[in-house]
Amino acid sequence: MCQLLGMNCNVPTDICFSFEGFATRGGKTDEHRDGWGIAFFEGKGCRLFLDSKPSIASPIAELVRCYPIRSTHVIAHIRKATQGKILLENCHPFRRQLWGQYWVFAHNGDLPAFAPQGMEFYRPVGDTDSEKAFCLILETLRQNFPKEKPSLEGIYPLLKDITNSIAEKGVFNYLLSDGEYFFAHCSTQLSYIVRQAPFAAAHLIDQDVTVDFRQLTKPSDRVAIIATTPLTDNELWTPIQPGDLLAFQDGLPLKLG
Amino acid sequence: MCQLLGMNCNVPTDICFSFEGFATRGGKTDEHRDGWGIAFFEGKGCRLFLDSKPSIASPIAELVRCYPIRSTHVIAHIRKATQGKILLENCHPFRRQLWGQYWVFAHNGDLPAFAPQGMEFYRPVGDTDSEKAFCLILETLRQNFPKEKPSLEGIYPLLKDITNSIAEKGVFNYLLSDGEYFFAHCSTQLSYIVRQAPFAAAHLIDQDVTVDFRQLTKPSDRVAIIATTPLTDNELWTPIQPGDLLAFQDGLPLKLG
Repeated sequence: MCQLLGMNCNVPTDICFSFEGFATRGGKTDEHRDGWGIAFFEGKGCRLFLDSKPSIASPIAELVRCYPIRSTHVIAHIRKATQGKILLENCHPFRRQLWGQYWVFAHNGDLPAFAPQGMEFYRPVGDTDSEKAFCLILETLRQNFPKEKPSLEGIYPLLKDITNSIAEKGVFNYLLSDGEYFFAHCSTQLSYIVRQAPFAAAHLIDQDVTVDFRQLTKPSDRVAIIATTPLTDNELWTPIQPGDLLAFQDGLPLKLG
Repeated sequence: MCQLLGMNCNVPTDICFSFEGFATRGGKTDEHRDGWGIAFFEGKGCRLFLDSKPSIASPIAELVRCYPIRSTHVIAHIRKATQGKILLENCHPFRRQLWGQYWVFAHNGDLPAFAPQGMEFYRPVGDTDSEKAFCLILETLRQNFPKEKPSLEGIYPLLKDITNSIAEKGVFNYLLSDGEYFFAHCSTQLSYIVRQAPFAAAHLIDQDVTVDFRQLTKPSDRVAIIATTPLTDNELWTPIQPGDLLAFQDGLPLKLG
């Protein structure tokens, strides 16, 4: 299996603190050694860092830990391979273009014997079940809305349907974003926390590192962090209920439909 | 305008030496300050580093300069904006999926009033002429070969046709690769050098740096470097003739068709 980390905020924020704890699980405090990746949206642009090395041993992960890239939509992943070899093309997040925007997807889980057919627009490059699921999601969205991107309320029921049908094949926790919308689906395990005023200090589980957000924030800031398991041990994380598909906006979870 | 750098080799090779000189042109020895990017293929996987900062001031460029990533197909670009704002989504190389592989493209030149219509599969995310041209190339390839990737000989005449028709709109020097094929088109300015046994020392134009390739190579190694203008001052670079579309394979230029 793998682990997911996402961030959605109302102002561009760096993810250094959360990524510090998360990346430690890529071979030190946990077993997710088979590659990692992170995507940062900046406007319509998207930076995607991928490495098939463990995140604790990757110079690129070291850069991401130390270089504060500010973004409102971030998706990261550390991999413990279930399907697909340990290769760069199998590292999440995956990225494709739809409606003139980049879409980014990362998956935690396993979809045995998942083999979607008849895809016209999207084709996987690697050999993971995850990339196939991502392609099927985008294919379905595009076939139903061939020209223009629908509103959040317009896209949600269709995304929920295709998500449910894929989730029947196995375990399907995922994060999905185009830099405007941000979706988090819980099939078995996914939690979030919303940090907002009054801010406090937070302490990582995986490393003895504390950050006092009172020093780093404005009162109007709001940041949601979504992770497979909580990253801090002195804050209250909310488990997302299995079967729930949340849309995050400006650092807040919305449950639509 | 912009500058291009490409590498095609018969064994995975790092591009640190060439990138060192090239990146210096992104704000120090030349004026290409409006972003940069580099794509490295590893098998079917592709690492893409992009930054809208000048390459001389980018921590990500610093990583690429210092961390030897070995690849047989590399495309890099430093940008001096002509069309499109200084934004991440306008940084080259651009990347899309076709026939289950990633395709990467970078452009030097300017295509005024270029507005391709009727594209079904590919749509630009940013607002450069370059990304539009890339989308039109992929769209044309896909419309003509909807299912499977053709041979190099099969793809070449079609790529040449669409390239010529775009080049009529302005200046269209480009590099294009999917990690297997590697194309270099010269519209006005593009040169290459093939380094092979007997190897010698090379000295950068943009910095006082020398590398002795005898210390770093095996006799069977062969590396082609393609660049807008030569990167070294003690080697003989071959200008590609305007109108020529070369395919590089295992470090050698082929002229097909």
